[in-house]
Amino acid sequence: MGVSGGLILSLEKHLDKILEIDTKNLIARVQPGVINKHFQNEVEKLGLFYPPDPASQDQSTLGGNVSENAGGMRAAKYGITKDYVMALRAVLPNGDIIRAGKKTIKDVAGFNVAGILIASEGCLAVISEITLKLLAKPKLRQSAMGVFHTIQEAMEAVYKTMASGVVPVAMEFLDNLTIKAVEERFNKGLPTKAGAILITQVDGSVPEQMAWQLSAIEGHFKANGCVDFKIAQTVAEEEDLWFARRNASQSISVYGKKKLNEDVTVPRASLPALLEEVGRISKAYNLPIPCFGHTGDGNVHVNIMLENPETQLEQGQRAMEEIFKCAIALEGTLSGEHGIGLSKAKFMPLAFSPEEMGLFRAIKKAFDPNNILNPFKMGL
Amino acid sequence: MGVSGGLILSLEKHLDKILEIDTKNLIARVQPGVINKHFQNEVEKLGLFYPPDPASQDQSTLGGNVSENAGGMRAAKYGITKDYVMALRAVLPNGDIIRAGKKTIKDVAGFNVAGILIASEGCLAVISEITLKLLAKPKLRQSAMGVFHTIQEAMEAVYKTMASGVVPVAMEFLDNLTIKAVEERFNKGLPTKAGAILITQVDGSVPEQMAWQLSAIEGHFKANGCVDFKIAQTVAEEEDLWFARRNASQSISVYGKKKLNEDVTVPRASLPALLEEVGRISKAYNLPIPCFGHTGDGNVHVNIMLENPETQLEQGQRAMEEIFKCAIALEGTLSGEHGIGLSKAKFMPLAFSPEEMGLFRAIKKAFDPNNILNPFKMGL
Ligand SMILES: Cc1cc2nc3c(=O)[nH]c(=O)nc-3n(C[C@H](O)[C@H](O)[C@H](O)COP(=O)(O)OP(=O)(O)OC[C@H]3O[C@@H](n4cnc5c(N)ncnc54)[C@H](O)[C@@H]3O)c2cc1C
Ligand SMILES: Cc1cc2nc3c(=O)[nH]c(=O)nc-3n(C[C@H](O)[C@H](O)[C@H](O)COP(=O)(O)OP(=O)(O)OC[C@H]3O[C@@H](n4cnc5c(N)ncnc54)[C@H](O)[C@@H]3O)c2cc1C
Repeated sequence: MGVSGGLILSLEKHLDKILEIDTKNLIARVQPGVINKHFQNEVEKLGLFYPPDPASQDQSTLGGNVSENAGGMRAAKYGITKDYVMALRAVLPNGDIIRAGKKTIKDVAGFNVAGILIASEGCLAVISEITLKLLAKPKLRQSAMGVFHTIQEAMEAVYKTMASGVVPVAMEFLDNLTIKAVEERFNKGLPTKAGAILITQVDGSVPEQMAWQLSAIEGHFKANGCVDFKIAQTVAEEEDLWFARRNASQSISVYGKKKLNEDVTVPRASLPALLEEVGRISKAYNLPIPCFGHTGDGNVHVNIMLENPETQLEQGQRAMEEIFKCAIALEGTLSGEHGIGLSKAKFMPLAFSPEEMGLFRAIKKAFDPNNILNPFKMGL
Repeated sequence: MGVSGGLILSLEKHLDKILEIDTKNLIARVQPGVINKHFQNEVEKLGLFYPPDPASQDQSTLGGNVSENAGGMRAAKYGITKDYVMALRAVLPNGDIIRAGKKTIKDVAGFNVAGILIASEGCLAVISEITLKLLAKPKLRQSAMGVFHTIQEAMEAVYKTMASGVVPVAMEFLDNLTIKAVEERFNKGLPTKAGAILITQVDGSVPEQMAWQLSAIEGHFKANGCVDFKIAQTVAEEEDLWFARRNASQSISVYGKKKLNEDVTVPRASLPALLEEVGRISKAYNLPIPCFGHTGDGNVHVNIMLENPETQLEQGQRAMEEIFKCAIALEGTLSGEHGIGLSKAKFMPLAFSPEEMGLFRAIKKAFDPNNILNPFKMGL
């Protein structure tokens, strides 16, 4: 919790209760301190499904998820937190308690205050209750992996598959450095010579729909240089496929003591250009930059690894700034997931004009005239 | 166009150009004056799909759709305008031009200004360019109709079907008065004794998926009192099924010279209660109130018919106010589609607390300190 929530949360311990799971309307009402994964588990017991699954799901709260508009592996098909927020209750800095949004799919009465609270990083109000849309849990699920010689081919395969009409639940990638790192630590028999692997998942209601999706994906992958396509046939095989992706972040520490990691995001068809540029920057700065991430929505975790943080930090930061500039030039964003907070506040002028920053300040002032909620975050 | 847009639009004729259809990223960029249906047609020529299809699609503009967060028949599966807006360009009242949002699925940098512009009814800024998400066009589509003895049974069938895991594209209903009106005008052989009919559509990629969806829907309908379930086997039969729904609005004029029509929306499981109450109010005020609408998302068009507008207007307005109160008591909203504008401004205090109205005014002031954009709309 940031500066903002601490005070309020202490009044009622952690505000971590699930208040209601309404199986008739497929809606839940929760307090903001509920841990994402706990919530997923509880709704799944009732045959329901809450898709947003950030990698931080075991620790992060639904309040934090709303405040950062968190996404996860399943965002390629199911979208991100904003697609599930129906209504919020919040405490304004002046103590007023407001409700925003409704328990209805549609609502065009009054300004969309819930919309502006999502991703507001605790700068506008303290969210005290969240009403979330749920889905029925899909009956069938299957995962597959494609191996590519080059990262360029893999990135072409991503956007061509996604543009074709098949809608995978997930479309994740690991580059060669990341594959090698996971293999070095866990010995899983991964293809260490591959330029990249893509790990994908589909779901549905009938077997024919699963088969159609997997064969469409296989077709698009192979048309773009996929040299090996493997469908997991058992739960154990599926877990094996995902093991590499889940352990990517911790494994890349083999490349350095410190990592500078950001989550730049670009339109999917710009992934090949982004990763080419990251490769160039890696060479130019002589720093390893393993990449992995949620390519299904154009989101890449770039990790600049520093063997010697004392001497390399500035160099690494300059490399990251070049990557930010490249992402923005490709019509992308500074952050697809982790937000701006304090650490990226200084980069805001790279992405926003003085007029846009002025509007952010005016909005901040409308909610929080005395600037008591998370001051300085987002550079405000 | 409201007060706001007129000025700007006159500068460049109608600002009605489609600027870009990006088939690699499934994204389009348009000017706000593009007519919804024209846009749908153009993207469909490229095998793409823009789902929001308000009944006003032949006249309404994408700028108006964004400003009212328009939905349509396909909202049950595909959501509403807000689910497709990726980015906006807008002119602020002080003349500043700002961009909000990105061509990326995810973006957590800066406040979600696009979020608050959606459904803002032209009160905050003039939208000058819209970036929209597209989908690939589904290959298969099929429609069906269920006939019910009572409207209660039909409404139970709606929410139980929607909660079961099958996701129909559309789930529309017509009550008995509406069925009789369409039949009176068009002689289509509709079941004039039915309490209600539900018209539904499914889509997908493989025939087995279609069959599964239709049989799941049939099962839920029949378990809830459906006495006749008919699947359209040809395009002509499909058009026939939808004919009744499309002509509902004009047909009900058989019940009176003037109609007071609103689009209240409630959580789906409250539809039976809402329609029971509407029946009671119809009797109490002795006014026919034919209803139809998008029950898949809890949205009901209630039409209070006045045979004698001079003498019955006040009575009709009181009946409508009772219906609004009922919808709000059921955790619903004053408007699922048509917005507040000027005519419903006086009802805002029914739905919002003084603190919430105060926040709306503060937001309005942050964007439009001199109150020059659509003053008085939404009661601000
Ligand atoms: C290891 C790791 C993996 C991650 N993986 C992902 C991922 O896959 N996808 C993704 O999107 N993000 C990811 N993140 C980022 C982060 O987990 C998410 O943004 C998450 O949503 C933050 O939730 P939290 O409970 O940890 O919030 P915190 O970090 O405690 O807070 C985040 C911000 O929200 C504010 N806030 C929190 N609660 C409230 C409230 N009730 N009202 C108002 N403001 C509030 C805080 O003040 C703060 O500014 C990851 C982070 C880590 C460390
Ligand atoms: C017969 C009929 C059927 C309808 N069916 C549906 C339906 O099925 N679903 C549904 O959701 N709605 C429906 N509506 C409501 C209406 O059509 C929609 O709200 C539509 O989105 C309005 O678009 P428009 O271009 O007509 O906007 P207008 O009515 O011209 O404007 C609506 C508001 O938006 C503002 N605005 C317009 N353009 C801009 C811009 N560029 N920048 C800033 N503000 C702007 C205007 O100032 C005004 O306040 C229906 C209306 C009618 C008359």
